[in-house]
Amino acid sequence: MNLSTEIEVRFADLDAYGHVNNAIFFTYLETARVKLFSERFPEIMQSGLLFLVVEANCRYRKPIELNDRVHIDISTKNLARSSFTFSYLIHDGCGKEFAEAQTVMVCFDPEHNKVTSLPEDFRMVLAI
Amino acid sequence: MNLSTEIEVRFADLDAYGHVNNAIFFTYLETARVKLFSERFPEIMQSGLLFLVVEANCRYRKPIELNDRVHIDISTKNLARSSFTFSYLIHDGCGKEFAEAQTVMVCFDPEHNKVTSLPEDFRMVLAI
Amino acid sequence: MNLSTEIEVRFADLDAYGHVNNAIFFTYLETARVKLFSERFPEIMQSGLLFLVVEANCRYRKPIELNDRVHIDISTKNLARSSFTFSYLIHDGCGKEFAEAQTVMVCFDPEHNKVTSLPEDFRMVLAI
Amino acid sequence: MNLSTEIEVRFADLDAYGHVNNAIFFTYLETARVKLFSERFPEIMQSGLLFLVVEANCRYRKPIELNDRVHIDISTKNLARSSFTFSYLIHDGCGKEFAEAQTVMVCFDPEHNKVTSLPEDFRMVLAI
Repeated sequence: MNLSTEIEVRFADLDAYGHVNNAIFFTYLETARVKLFSERFPEIMQSGLLFLVVEANCRYRKPIELNDRVHIDISTKNLARSSFTFSYLIHDGCGKEFAEAQTVMVCFDPEHNKVTSLPEDFRMVLAI
Repeated sequence: MNLSTEIEVRFADLDAYGHVNNAIFFTYLETARVKLFSERFPEIMQSGLLFLVVEANCRYRKPIELNDRVHIDISTKNLARSSFTFSYLIHDGCGKEFAEAQTVMVCFDPEHNKVTSLPEDFRMVLAI
Repeated sequence: MNLSTEIEVRFADLDAYGHVNNAIFFTYLETARVKLFSERFPEIMQSGLLFLVVEANCRYRKPIELNDRVHIDISTKNLARSSFTFSYLIHDGCGKEFAEAQTVMVCFDPEHNKVTSLPEDFRMVLAI
Repeated sequence: MNLSTEIEVRFADLDAYGHVNNAIFFTYLETARVKLFSERFPEIMQSGLLFLVVEANCRYRKPIELNDRVHIDISTKNLARSSFTFSYLIHDGCGKEFAEAQTVMVCFDPEHNKVTSLPEDFRMVLAI
């Protein structure tokens, strides 16, 4: 699965250095992820299953400024029974790369309070 | 009721102007409010009742900087059947006033999805 | 001057109640304002003048949820020598009104550290 | 160098799942870092040098809830000419570990717009 979405930079995302704050990059990843899930897997969003971030990392290449356009490409890696990794490229759509990132996600069933298998149809889309 | 609490300024609260962002002042009010509720009314926090902000305003006097100490004094006004107003003074504890603010709060019962009367013991503490 | 822009709701804007947090409404106002300034007054954004919020208020009507569309209409009121008021309507573009808000803005010259007159061309656009 | 500080959880840090949002963990790291720098290296904070995060990662162990106490222990690793790594343990002070994290920091001279050597006195404190 390869998908891309665009994020809108807000003035409030900037810190006192005048660039998008390093923690906000993870908010951008989440925003991209949730948009993707809402658009592609609305039934999973309503199933009650949660996809928890158990590990996250980001390598910052270039600062993001207020007027930059921010695109996020997402691809899947390490698809396992109940977990998978999303790999992200944050860029401006014109060859400028702001950051590379990854999040390891686990499928969690809050009703039974335990990790659970990925729904089969969800796994199939991720695997493409 | 008159209470005071201290808020810790975070670097992330600053915006590109180098001061605490104007929206964050409302986060400070909420933080003070929730601390107050947790300490003084733990049973109400667990009752399931919500206190929703239906109106908020702030008059900004002086910018808050990273190393400033931030105290928030809260007092009650306009105590009614199902609503009340909190009045806030945001200051540094040494006579410097950063802002004055107010929030109108309504007691909401999410189970029945409607506005409800303030619990009597809560109202009595607010009235003091 | 009457302008409208759209804001993208982020998952991170929601609080533990599952709705957009009350402080984030002020972030939305700022985002709309800065977009407007960047698009319509790029030269003013680069002039070094700052437009500081000296007063802000919001009346919350309906909660904003993750999948809501959020439009913000801005109009000018009380145009004075060095200050003006922006009036905002936050709505979904289909008749549902989330909130009404206002911010009183003052034109500030950071180089001379004092309030200053609004640039004449800026005032003219605001006055339309 | 081994240091520890305490962070105050805010209601606004929680997301719609009712736990501290995963991106906020990085805000906590920054808050701890900036407190440490302000207390221990005030002259460096005023020197104009910036310490930029070029890489960050976090392994989430347990969710942080509103009433949790949050301590952050910081230690130094991989001290090089112009960069170093901070290693963090986020815990409750009573044996419960919320997360482990690392940030790779680079010393940057904004005046000359380039990476620069760590100040010698700063390096010595980090090395202890």
